[in-house]
Amino acid sequence: MRCEILSVGTELLLGDILNTNAQYLSRRLADLGIPVYFHTTVGDNPERLKKALEIAFSRSDMVIATGGLGPTQDDLTKEISAEFFNKKLVLHEESLKRIKEFFERRGLNLTEGNIKQAYIIEGSRVIPNDWGTAPGIILEEGGKILILLPGPPKEMIPMFETYVVPYLSTFSSGIIYSKVLRVCGIGESFMEEKVKDLIKSQTNPTIAPYAKEGEAILRITARAKSKEEAEKMIEGVVKEIRKRLGDYIYGEGETSLEEVVVNLLLEKGLTISVAESCTGGLISARLVNVPGVSKVFKGSIIAYDNEVKIKELNVPEEIFKEYGAVSSQCAMKMAEGIAKKMGTDVGLSATGIAGPEGGTLEKPIGLVYIGLYIRGEMSYKELRLSGDRNRIRLYTTINGLDLLRRGLLNL
Amino acid sequence: MRCEILSVGTELLLGDILNTNAQYLSRRLADLGIPVYFHTTVGDNPERLKKALEIAFSRSDMVIATGGLGPTQDDLTKEISAEFFNKKLVLHEESLKRIKEFFERRGLNLTEGNIKQAYIIEGSRVIPNDWGTAPGIILEEGGKILILLPGPPKEMIPMFETYVVPYLSTFSSGIIYSKVLRVCGIGESFMEEKVKDLIKSQTNPTIAPYAKEGEAILRITARAKSKEEAEKMIEGVVKEIRKRLGDYIYGEGETSLEEVVVNLLLEKGLTISVAESCTGGLISARLVNVPGVSKVFKGSIIAYDNEVKIKELNVPEEIFKEYGAVSSQCAMKMAEGIAKKMGTDVGLSATGIAGPEGGTLEKPIGLVYIGLYIRGEMSYKELRLSGDRNRIRLYTTINGLDLLRRGLLNL
Repeated sequence: MRCEILSVGTELLLGDILNTNAQYLSRRLADLGIPVYFHTTVGDNPERLKKALEIAFSRSDMVIATGGLGPTQDDLTKEISAEFFNKKLVLHEESLKRIKEFFERRGLNLTEGNIKQAYIIEGSRVIPNDWGTAPGIILEEGGKILILLPGPPKEMIPMFETYVVPYLSTFSSGIIYSKVLRVCGIGESFMEEKVKDLIKSQTNPTIAPYAKEGEAILRITARAKSKEEAEKMIEGVVKEIRKRLGDYIYGEGETSLEEVVVNLLLEKGLTISVAESCTGGLISARLVNVPGVSKVFKGSIIAYDNEVKIKELNVPEEIFKEYGAVSSQCAMKMAEGIAKKMGTDVGLSATGIAGPEGGTLEKPIGLVYIGLYIRGEMSYKELRLSGDRNRIRLYTTINGLDLLRRGLLNL
Repeated sequence: MRCEILSVGTELLLGDILNTNAQYLSRRLADLGIPVYFHTTVGDNPERLKKALEIAFSRSDMVIATGGLGPTQDDLTKEISAEFFNKKLVLHEESLKRIKEFFERRGLNLTEGNIKQAYIIEGSRVIPNDWGTAPGIILEEGGKILILLPGPPKEMIPMFETYVVPYLSTFSSGIIYSKVLRVCGIGESFMEEKVKDLIKSQTNPTIAPYAKEGEAILRITARAKSKEEAEKMIEGVVKEIRKRLGDYIYGEGETSLEEVVVNLLLEKGLTISVAESCTGGLISARLVNVPGVSKVFKGSIIAYDNEVKIKELNVPEEIFKEYGAVSSQCAMKMAEGIAKKMGTDVGLSATGIAGPEGGTLEKPIGLVYIGLYIRGEMSYKELRLSGDRNRIRLYTTINGLDLLRRGLLNL
């Protein structure tokens, strides 16, 4: 079972967007033990797209195509694929219903283009799109398999994981089972150093490190007869990795740093509020990502202006004179101030210089202080971050959540 | 002159690395007016690499291949290319000298593999590598052009810019120039409907719609002799599109909705503060994306808990009893409350049900109210959004910024 990944979209050929789908699918197909021998990218051009399908199926058993399922004129992947297999497009009532509901919920009216999205290739099975409008398609024809998925990763990835992976597993011998360890507070390369020898020596299970924005992931993948067997194989590796990375590992599997932190607060019956300066709401927004956070999260104050730090967070004016707004003292006062203001057990704060202006010799761009208040106890962390404004704010957010995690775990 | 980009490396097919070279080269070739119709990625496999070269040259005049010029056994791009053109590899003394110096400078000794790197295809011209060891190659043969570059971007990019761009500019007929129109507050498919006929009829300039998260983009691209000529060609199209889309267009070129809004505040000398509930800080975070926002943005209160809405934003308790927290009345009171609290001219607010819990029949998940206060005047917008928690919050954020934009422009 050889697979080829076909990316459709002129924006890719113009370099407007980076082809992350091809990497994502390649990685996951590798996990599934399905070899990928070619990637092809073609524009929204009927002739060239058809030619690309011909070539792909001449050398591969399966083609996974992403993109070109949208409502617009130049979205042609489905039409050309049907043509290639000499099939008609037929209306898929259930998809049409989904799409109609999708638009009704938003109080918008359906366009011709959206109705076009409800058509599928005759004899194919539909991959439901619970994340957007365009359904995906799996077509088995003459020993070949064509899988069509939408281009936007926000739709493509969950559709692939939810519906395509189970379908593909039926082709791979035995089962592939993998576990993810989530790491933060340590650089990717530093993490890799610590487990390098394991990564090198392991063949089954394999260990693959992935960098995520400000975090890192270790995916341990085992090929085995059964899930139980795979889990046993993985267990030993996980144990060794935990020995090396210790509390840099904040979670396992499908979770997030904010989810781990919110669950800790729920367990301990603690409420929280946040005082943000340079992050401008990012820390709070991460917490609010977690459904049910309302049980522990009361609110936040974004004190971008120092007046607000003084008036709303009761940071003493002397702090600014003596230490400045970007100081451990100010961060801790902000954390205490918000906790008392909102009447919560925990207060978290961040103040720093995100740039591009405002840096000085002794307080350069990237200098950030995170403050933590837990029932009268105060602590802080100093960060010296590099990169642009957004990177500094993102890393501050992650470090803030990690400081909170460590505080709640008394690490 | 059609160009194809050929990326060589098994690590790409395994998804171990992201193919940023293809994007980089595509973007630069577009700048040079050289059309790219295909990207192909192939592994370090002699047969498949040779086949990929055959296919590429069967449909393109020029192939730019990156990767596979390294010192190891599986670096074969040069060898296979020579084979493809029935040419010998010959030692290039100057490159050997460079490589030797490269290693001497680092106190390392030369390996056989590195000497192999000094061999080039007979009759080709060498692209010096001042950033690593592997030289690049330009081969003109039978009306076809093959350009080989190393895979590491640190070497590929400077070699391309320094030596390949000057070479390529001799081929490009005129230039390609494009302009981007940024659209929000209207769905991609609905926007498409309004300009469909233009997109169909236009060949030069072309009009291409792209969906962005909660926004849309129209890229108008013209091929012309000069930038001036291209700009004139684009001007007319932009005028027509503006006639159709009117104030759904919030900006042109490299900008963002938050940047447009912050600039409007600066122009009008207005300060702003934000009261957020379901968005949990996302609106504020978007504003803080903009460098220099501190001149207009004072701060925000994230009133996730109703107590906070009452205590900090002075939303009268009756509002909750009569209309509930998710109501136009509450949204407007929140906007007024934050503006008065922070002493700003403008107050923006959002309150809604992001789910997955909390939806009712008359107040379903996705129901959101955005409130706007500008110097005593209040307005609001009701949204009925679909999708998951994060999508609802993202679209609320964009609609909130758009309501603010319209308020500031008296639209």
